[in-house]
Amino acid sequence: MRPQAHASLPPVRLAVVGTGYWGPNLIRNARELDCFDLQAVCDLREEILVRVRSRYPGVRTTTRLDDIMSDDAIEAVVIATPVSTHYDIAAAALAAGKHVLVEKPLAGSLDMAARLAADASARGLVLLPGHTFLYSPPVNLIAGMIARGELGDIYFASTSRVNLGLHQSDVSVIWDLAPHDFSILRYWFGEIPLSATATGRACILPGVADVAFVSLEFPHGVVAHTELSWLAPAKLRRTTIVGSQRMVIYDDTSPEPVRIYDSGVLLESPQSFGEFKLTYRTGDILSPRVEPTEPLSLELRDFHDAIRTGSEPRSSATIGVEVVSMIEAAEQSLGADGRRVAVAVPTTTAAAGHL
Amino acid sequence: MRPQAHASLPPVRLAVVGTGYWGPNLIRNARELDCFDLQAVCDLREEILVRVRSRYPGVRTTTRLDDIMSDDAIEAVVIATPVSTHYDIAAAALAAGKHVLVEKPLAGSLDMAARLAADASARGLVLLPGHTFLYSPPVNLIAGMIARGELGDIYFASTSRVNLGLHQSDVSVIWDLAPHDFSILRYWFGEIPLSATATGRACILPGVADVAFVSLEFPHGVVAHTELSWLAPAKLRRTTIVGSQRMVIYDDTSPEPVRIYDSGVLLESPQSFGEFKLTYRTGDILSPRVEPTEPLSLELRDFHDAIRTGSEPRSSATIGVEVVSMIEAAEQSLGADGRRVAVAVPTTTAAAGHL
Amino acid sequence: MRPQAHASLPPVRLAVVGTGYWGPNLIRNARELDCFDLQAVCDLREEILVRVRSRYPGVRTTTRLDDIMSDDAIEAVVIATPVSTHYDIAAAALAAGKHVLVEKPLAGSLDMAARLAADASARGLVLLPGHTFLYSPPVNLIAGMIARGELGDIYFASTSRVNLGLHQSDVSVIWDLAPHDFSILRYWFGEIPLSATATGRACILPGVADVAFVSLEFPHGVVAHTELSWLAPAKLRRTTIVGSQRMVIYDDTSPEPVRIYDSGVLLESPQSFGEFKLTYRTGDILSPRVEPTEPLSLELRDFHDAIRTGSEPRSSATIGVEVVSMIEAAEQSLGADGRRVAVAVPTTTAAAGHL
Amino acid sequence: MRPQAHASLPPVRLAVVGTGYWGPNLIRNARELDCFDLQAVCDLREEILVRVRSRYPGVRTTTRLDDIMSDDAIEAVVIATPVSTHYDIAAAALAAGKHVLVEKPLAGSLDMAARLAADASARGLVLLPGHTFLYSPPVNLIAGMIARGELGDIYFASTSRVNLGLHQSDVSVIWDLAPHDFSILRYWFGEIPLSATATGRACILPGVADVAFVSLEFPHGVVAHTELSWLAPAKLRRTTIVGSQRMVIYDDTSPEPVRIYDSGVLLESPQSFGEFKLTYRTGDILSPRVEPTEPLSLELRDFHDAIRTGSEPRSSATIGVEVVSMIEAAEQSLGADGRRVAVAVPTTTAAAGHL
Repeated sequence: MRPQAHASLPPVRLAVVGTGYWGPNLIRNARELDCFDLQAVCDLREEILVRVRSRYPGVRTTTRLDDIMSDDAIEAVVIATPVSTHYDIAAAALAAGKHVLVEKPLAGSLDMAARLAADASARGLVLLPGHTFLYSPPVNLIAGMIARGELGDIYFASTSRVNLGLHQSDVSVIWDLAPHDFSILRYWFGEIPLSATATGRACILPGVADVAFVSLEFPHGVVAHTELSWLAPAKLRRTTIVGSQRMVIYDDTSPEPVRIYDSGVLLESPQSFGEFKLTYRTGDILSPRVEPTEPLSLELRDFHDAIRTGSEPRSSATIGVEVVSMIEAAEQSLGADGRRVAVAVPTTTAAAGHL
Repeated sequence: MRPQAHASLPPVRLAVVGTGYWGPNLIRNARELDCFDLQAVCDLREEILVRVRSRYPGVRTTTRLDDIMSDDAIEAVVIATPVSTHYDIAAAALAAGKHVLVEKPLAGSLDMAARLAADASARGLVLLPGHTFLYSPPVNLIAGMIARGELGDIYFASTSRVNLGLHQSDVSVIWDLAPHDFSILRYWFGEIPLSATATGRACILPGVADVAFVSLEFPHGVVAHTELSWLAPAKLRRTTIVGSQRMVIYDDTSPEPVRIYDSGVLLESPQSFGEFKLTYRTGDILSPRVEPTEPLSLELRDFHDAIRTGSEPRSSATIGVEVVSMIEAAEQSLGADGRRVAVAVPTTTAAAGHL
Repeated sequence: MRPQAHASLPPVRLAVVGTGYWGPNLIRNARELDCFDLQAVCDLREEILVRVRSRYPGVRTTTRLDDIMSDDAIEAVVIATPVSTHYDIAAAALAAGKHVLVEKPLAGSLDMAARLAADASARGLVLLPGHTFLYSPPVNLIAGMIARGELGDIYFASTSRVNLGLHQSDVSVIWDLAPHDFSILRYWFGEIPLSATATGRACILPGVADVAFVSLEFPHGVVAHTELSWLAPAKLRRTTIVGSQRMVIYDDTSPEPVRIYDSGVLLESPQSFGEFKLTYRTGDILSPRVEPTEPLSLELRDFHDAIRTGSEPRSSATIGVEVVSMIEAAEQSLGADGRRVAVAVPTTTAAAGHL
Repeated sequence: MRPQAHASLPPVRLAVVGTGYWGPNLIRNARELDCFDLQAVCDLREEILVRVRSRYPGVRTTTRLDDIMSDDAIEAVVIATPVSTHYDIAAAALAAGKHVLVEKPLAGSLDMAARLAADASARGLVLLPGHTFLYSPPVNLIAGMIARGELGDIYFASTSRVNLGLHQSDVSVIWDLAPHDFSILRYWFGEIPLSATATGRACILPGVADVAFVSLEFPHGVVAHTELSWLAPAKLRRTTIVGSQRMVIYDDTSPEPVRIYDSGVLLESPQSFGEFKLTYRTGDILSPRVEPTEPLSLELRDFHDAIRTGSEPRSSATIGVEVVSMIEAAEQSLGADGRRVAVAVPTTTAAAGHL
């Protein structure tokens, strides 16, 4: 990890908009970090703001978004509202000259996400989509192994993110859960997939898929498969990565979140036509110690540093747009009988020279 | 389970053809069961037959298939040879008037499988494809729960069958591993799927997919998803079935192979448009005791009873043909960019009045 | 659980003394519960009191214990200080006419514990030792099964409470960890053991045992064994209870904290001399759903109700004294080469008619 | 492991006495190994001998022990009979000039075990007690780590060997199960304990303890604790070894039988009186690959080599006698209210210069 700038630079004056499921974690971290000065919290529900004031004396609260946008003392806004409101609020904040951290997914459509990214770029403002997993120590430990080639060629990845949880009534399980896996896969493999294929079913609410199986094909050949469900008997957060040299199982719910298998299969060559000699190798299994740092805290520090130093945050606007593009393709495939759908390359991606 | 007839009826005079991976298990069981009289074993490799003779004195051995087929004392043949030879050997055995148990999949194409089934039917001979899992106590415990409606409406099933194992050089992982899951799903749900969608990759051997993700859509709405791989760091044999009343996890490698979750989600009605009220329920988890009976022994007894009493074996020729039809559709989809492919309804299925 | 009185009765005016490891949990719960009015917090470290004031505006803080004891508005004191100070602070609070909840173990010796209990009884004040596990839903689920005879005759219990954790420098691992298991065993079996036998070792700090194995023999024949350690590679919180009808595994760290095994062994009788016929039975395993209620919250409510209604708290002074008696016997055995040491029956126990 | 001599040396002509629980494994291995020529099998039950003859044509069978002892062609005898008969049969075999492999424990008392060892030594015959775990790859992997000092100073070991299993009617669970753990501990630590302390209970059969907790104190300070039971809801085979540098969990039932924890606690020194500074370290966890060799096959090869080359077998008569001495001390303690009982040092141990 690069040296962190936040220690020596002045704190960022911050407002948080939205105090639903994830907002309280953002507020708590923003209060505890020296690199932020939490000034205001905005929510439509006054009864929640009462509790915020009692818990965090000195923080102003308001039910009116304008109070935030028009307050010149506020430099940056953290948006943790429903997805359908991301675009409007983020666009307003950017228009008001404020840096923006917006919860994932960045916006409800690729078009809106791309406009936010272009807008932030044009104004020289930071736009950080809250892909918190990009700051998770296990995810980064694996990212390092992949980057150093320790897994060999990556063949495929298979992920399951399921349990009996909260249905959304307006968006599918793909919009709800895929941002986690898609952002991680995008981050690990350093490229966006060419195409998505998705099947699934709306079991409970008509028209709202609550289980989905998505396949992604990446330019360098990696295939990734993602199982997503709000309906499952037991919680699963299991990602398997199969490489030619090593294989990894990543499970965020385990006391040993990363397990590295020194196993593989070798195709010996040259072989005469039709003759294959495969050698299977099963070796040690290593569970490396992983730092127990809270990813959200690292994400907020990265937000601060990007604002104060102009650095590109790890969870960049470009990645945020790309993840929305992946979601859109998967959703389209789900609605088209599982037909393979090309993932649109966002203009920001091209502009950033990522492809 | 119905009363078993084998106890009181004379043993069936048997020959086993093929002593590779699975053949020795068949030979051992055939010897230990009173309902069979193992007379001969056929294999191309004389060095293996030497061992068979030393281990099972009194059993004749031969490298010539004709010795089996022309031996009128032999009533039934068990075929455990490579898939590509199933059709020719089974057809020859049927032509010689012998009952046939042939390892799964029944044949290398739907056309061949259907011809075997029709031939057996015309000749009044038993043709039992070796879908051993249909005789597995955990599979049948779950089948009973489904049949009695204890899971409620079945929403979906998700299965994983992966580990670092033996690659086949001529057929994909679908032909190799899917017969297990497909036969179980077909047996549980009592119908063949409408369509299959498959993605995957040939990671090691060009042209031979060693990882595949297959979605199946069943007429009554159930979606099933199957992950198959010869490349995985750790063995997984996990099947999740999600119903409206209960959910089940079936894991053949666990000391608790069946776990029943008394959990679910309720959609309360009536609701005004766009208003949904969901209630989640999480209850007890039960691991029922499962009899440790060896499935292969039950399968062989079923073969005997079908021969002696004319009963339909649980693993019927019809199911064998249907499984091959499912495999063919999945393979076609895999070769067509994951396009949804209709599963052909075998004529035997229609003839048997199964649809 | 009996109907809870706290809802309709006035809140108890409370002070918390000690804000170390466990104190903050007590403060948080006392604030969140309507049945308490947290008035003051006392600690020797002013720097911690600053944080308390910032987090809980309106709560008075002091470094002087006398400020608490002399404040007539305060009805009850919660003591979460080191064990060596329990007696003096609790005695002072009782002398000041205040009800007392004191963290476990009740005091640093049986003599002191018994004097506190007698003092509280004489003054008509509540003295509740903080045996929080007596309010744990899994512990109570098992207590109910035992009380209803569902396990049959209890043969023995075996517990492990180990991991790599904080050494105490003044007391052994028995004083530190045994209060958990001893209070649970005392609660489940409804009697105090006749004797204790302990072995162990001081591996790191000379004279301070950091691993211990304690056997307890109960009047009705149950044997209990407790493994305690600050030195272990992996966290274990495993309690096995073996009964003639059923067996139970209780693991507080598991998502399935209680597992009930419908297994057992039967000795058929009558048998001629030396002839035994045993029948082993292995049945279903049930993981009952357990309410996720926080035990500390239930403990505090019980404290409130005892104060307001005169009811005996589940974690009674009698139990607190008995647990200290068990600890003293185990410590003596540890210091005497594992010799069996009788557990002294506290006078409070006899007085209460518990034996 | 030292180079194995069996390849080049002539096979040993062998008889097996006793075909109960373990005998069939010995017979099967003896047949499959080139270094043995299995000539005869002796058992009191003719109906079992019929099966032996059918399965192993060419092997003579007899119900008369004398037929074995008087057959000069037989060089070595493997004894797998009940413990109470070990001494008489082994003594007869030694008297007949035959090498002896006798199942564990070596004999039913220290006195008898020592006499067998002395007898074998005087006659220059091999006496190998069947402590098969000394040939287990995981046990030897750990032995190597200990010998190389990779665990640092060993503080303690804690083992559990429990499940719902076969009661013996004549000997306690200590005689039945402790030989496994005691032989492993003796092998790892290279010394016999000074003393044993045991508690337990006879839950089912009067006078026959079916659960026991044994503490052993070794000369160099290691404390070992062993939990043994025929009554437990779930199978446990868990051994924890805690060292100053690393800790190990060994579980023979796990696909990862050895797990090495790079964790520990450091006492920093020098410290002023009463001031302790401890540093806890939690590092990686490694599951090394362990060869899947069958221990019994290695044990039999060692028996062959000892006979043909005069080498000392790893499971030596000395170890066999020492294990019986440990058992006797534990049994005495169990019968004496858990009093600490000194482990007698066998004369063979002293003679062999082991202490």
